[in-house]
Amino acid sequence: MEDWSSEELARLRGIYEPLAESVRDLVDATIRTEADPQIVAEVTRDIGSAVARLRSRQIEGSFGVRHTTAGESVGWGNAVIGMRNALAPPVVTRRDESGTVRADFTLGAAYEGPPGHVHGGVSAMILDHLLGEAATADRTPRFTGSITVRYLRATRLGPLRAEAVHTRTEGVKTFCTGHIADDDGVTVEAEGVFITPRWLRD
Amino acid sequence: MEDWSSEELARLRGIYEPLAESVRDLVDATIRTEADPQIVAEVTRDIGSAVARLRSRQIEGSFGVRHTTAGESVGWGNAVIGMRNALAPPVVTRRDESGTVRADFTLGAAYEGPPGHVHGGVSAMILDHLLGEAATADRTPRFTGSITVRYLRATRLGPLRAEAVHTRTEGVKTFCTGHIADDDGVTVEAEGVFITPRWLRD
Repeated sequence: MEDWSSEELARLRGIYEPLAESVRDLVDATIRTEADPQIVAEVTRDIGSAVARLRSRQIEGSFGVRHTTAGESVGWGNAVIGMRNALAPPVVTRRDESGTVRADFTLGAAYEGPPGHVHGGVSAMILDHLLGEAATADRTPRFTGSITVRYLRATRLGPLRAEAVHTRTEGVKTFCTGHIADDDGVTVEAEGVFITPRWLRD
Repeated sequence: MEDWSSEELARLRGIYEPLAESVRDLVDATIRTEADPQIVAEVTRDIGSAVARLRSRQIEGSFGVRHTTAGESVGWGNAVIGMRNALAPPVVTRRDESGTVRADFTLGAAYEGPPGHVHGGVSAMILDHLLGEAATADRTPRFTGSITVRYLRATRLGPLRAEAVHTRTEGVKTFCTGHIADDDGVTVEAEGVFITPRWLRD
């Protein structure tokens, strides 16, 4: 597969981002609808037709990671940050000069565990991703060895922010910490150990 | 809100399950499609119309948990097990007499992290849920205190199984362990500590 220029990347984003946004909306509406059974049946049929049209030409397997000519990675299928993946909020991360990774995002009805609150597993998933980004800020690939997530209190559905930072490296182990917070402060904390792959150790 | 009889539950499942299944399909197709931009634009418009029809009547906020007259909990909006939540595979759990919680499920393109493999955060999310079910097998509510997830090797996208079991209770703390496995064995392990809420301690 050829690398994408930044123009090509922008063109593709223009095609697929509105689609993925409308599917995110649909996921939410599918959970919350109380429309008449007949309307639900019609919508179900229409979505079947939409799927058939999209599948008229599609990649085999999963999206994987594509690259741009500028050296960027494009993980549009990723479960946490994937722009084309309606399961992903998506979490849009940014990294400052110090290597701290931050994200602001909103979790709605589709991320629920306890009534009105974020599923603890969703918090773990997002923190796993952010810690992984903090661990590879130097662009060295590292695998997650383990992650520990501590729940301080329940996280309400709504606007949230998350942060992760690299704390230290000891030999092949890199340590990171992070948290999720709402307007009243931190709700979930995490720490992770990331391992340098064997083929990169010398 | 009134409780649902088992007839009502079956009737509602008949309405919403086909819708959610078609939306799961659509999420996958949205990641993988290479259809002409014109087709994608038409589909985007059609989905917008589907959303409007579903939202013509909808619950406020999230789904929460409903109950049946038989005392079952119905978490159809849940991010891991929710039948009406297209983000959930869904994981369908079953519990044997010994209290072990098991689930078989298939993770496709929407659950990707590293190319061709399950996002580590998705594994953490599923294990968090299963351990939580194992911790509350006696129907006593318990909150997740912390969970540690250890990645033994990468988990390929495809058919998987997971298991969780209660190991011991010490005062207000209940301990559980679990894992995810593919045909070649365990890929991810987890252990969690669950806390009895203060109002239930005496």
